[in-house]
Amino acid sequence: MNFEKLSFEKLVLALASDAPTPGGGTAAALAGAMGASLAEMVAALTVAKEKYAASHGAVRPIGEAAARAREKLLRLAEEDATSYDAVVAARRLPKDTDGERTERSRRIGEANRVAAEVPMRTAREAAGVLTFLPELAEKGNPNAASDAGAAALLLEAAVQAALLNVGINLSGVPDTELAARMTEEADRLGHEAGRLRERTLATVRARI
Amino acid sequence: MNFEKLSFEKLVLALASDAPTPGGGTAAALAGAMGASLAEMVAALTVAKEKYAASHGAVRPIGEAAARAREKLLRLAEEDATSYDAVVAARRLPKDTDGERTERSRRIGEANRVAAEVPMRTAREAAGVLTFLPELAEKGNPNAASDAGAAALLLEAAVQAALLNVGINLSGVPDTELAARMTEEADRLGHEAGRLRERTLATVRARI
Repeated sequence: MNFEKLSFEKLVLALASDAPTPGGGTAAALAGAMGASLAEMVAALTVAKEKYAASHGAVRPIGEAAARAREKLLRLAEEDATSYDAVVAARRLPKDTDGERTERSRRIGEANRVAAEVPMRTAREAAGVLTFLPELAEKGNPNAASDAGAAALLLEAAVQAALLNVGINLSGVPDTELAARMTEEADRLGHEAGRLRERTLATVRARI
Repeated sequence: MNFEKLSFEKLVLALASDAPTPGGGTAAALAGAMGASLAEMVAALTVAKEKYAASHGAVRPIGEAAARAREKLLRLAEEDATSYDAVVAARRLPKDTDGERTERSRRIGEANRVAAEVPMRTAREAAGVLTFLPELAEKGNPNAASDAGAAALLLEAAVQAALLNVGINLSGVPDTELAARMTEEADRLGHEAGRLRERTLATVRARI
C-alpha cells in the first residue's frame, strides 16, 4: 500500500482497522512528516518577508532540512508497515522439523532487527528536525510562532512513538549487543527530544 | 479545500506551503484523528480475540468513542482552516472611515473568537479520547501496547498544539471575560493531557 497516495480519510481508516499494519510506527512517521511540513511553513513565512531579512540566513537551511526530512519520513511510513509485515510472515513459517524451527527462528530474529531499525530511522529523522526548532521558534516569523510550537509537539510525539516501536521489536532481536546499543541510542534520542520540545514551547509561549 | 479527501502527500505539501492555512490548528486536528484511529485499532485487536474476553466490555465502548472523535477531528481539521481564513479576510476589510474601522474591528474580534473556539473543540475531542488511554493500555491486547502508547503521544500533541492556537487567537478577542474563561479551560486541558500521556506511557513501558 502506498500510504502517501491514499486520502487522509482512508489513511486513518487503515490505521483504525484491526489489521496489524499500518500501526503506531507508520503513524509516528506520518506525524513526523506533518511536523516537518509545519517547520517548512514557518521557514517559508519568514523567508517571504523582507522584514525578517536578518533571520533569512539562519532560517532558509532549516526549511530545506525540514523538506528533506519530510520526504524521508513519508518513505519511512511505508517501510515501517512493510518491515512489520515481514515479522508476521516469518512467524507463519513452518515449524515441524528441527531444520524448519532453526530457519524460522533465524528469520524472525532478522525481521525483528529490521522492524526495530526502521522506527529508529524515523526517530532520528524527526529528532533531526526537532534540533532546529528552538532556533526556528526564536528567529522565525512571530505570527507563525504557534505553528513552530505545533511542529515541535508533532516531531517529539513522532520520536517517542517511533521509539516505542523500536523497543517492542528489539525484544525479538537475538543479537544482545546490537539490542543494547540501540536501546542506548533510543534513550538518548527520547531524552533529547523531550528537552527540545520544552525549549521550543518556552520560546513560543514568550512570543504569543 | 476538503483535507480528508486529499492524498497525504498533498496534505503535507499544503501544510508546508507559505499560505497561512492549513497550519498548526489543522495539523493538530489531523494528529488527533490519527491518535484516535490508533486507539480504535487497539480496541479492535482486543475485541477480536477471545483470549481478552474479560476486557471486551471495557474496551468496546472506548473503540466506539474513539471512532466518533476521529470523525469530529477530521471535520475540525477543515473548520480550523476556514475559521482562520475568516480572520485574514476580516483584517483586509477597508479602514478608511470611522464607520469602516469600527466594523472592521468588530469583525476581526468576532473572527478571532471563532478561530479560538475551533481549536478549543479540537483540544476537547483529543483530550476526551486521551482520558480512556490509560485503561486501554492496561486492558487492551498487549501485542498492541506500543500502539496505545503512540495513540496517547499523538493525542497529547494534538491537545497541546490546538491549545497554542487557542492562545494565539484569544489574544485578538476583545471579550476579556470570555478570554479568561477559555484560558482557564485551556490550562486545565493542557495539564490533564500531560498527566494522561505520562500515565499511559508508564503502563505501556511496563507491558512491552
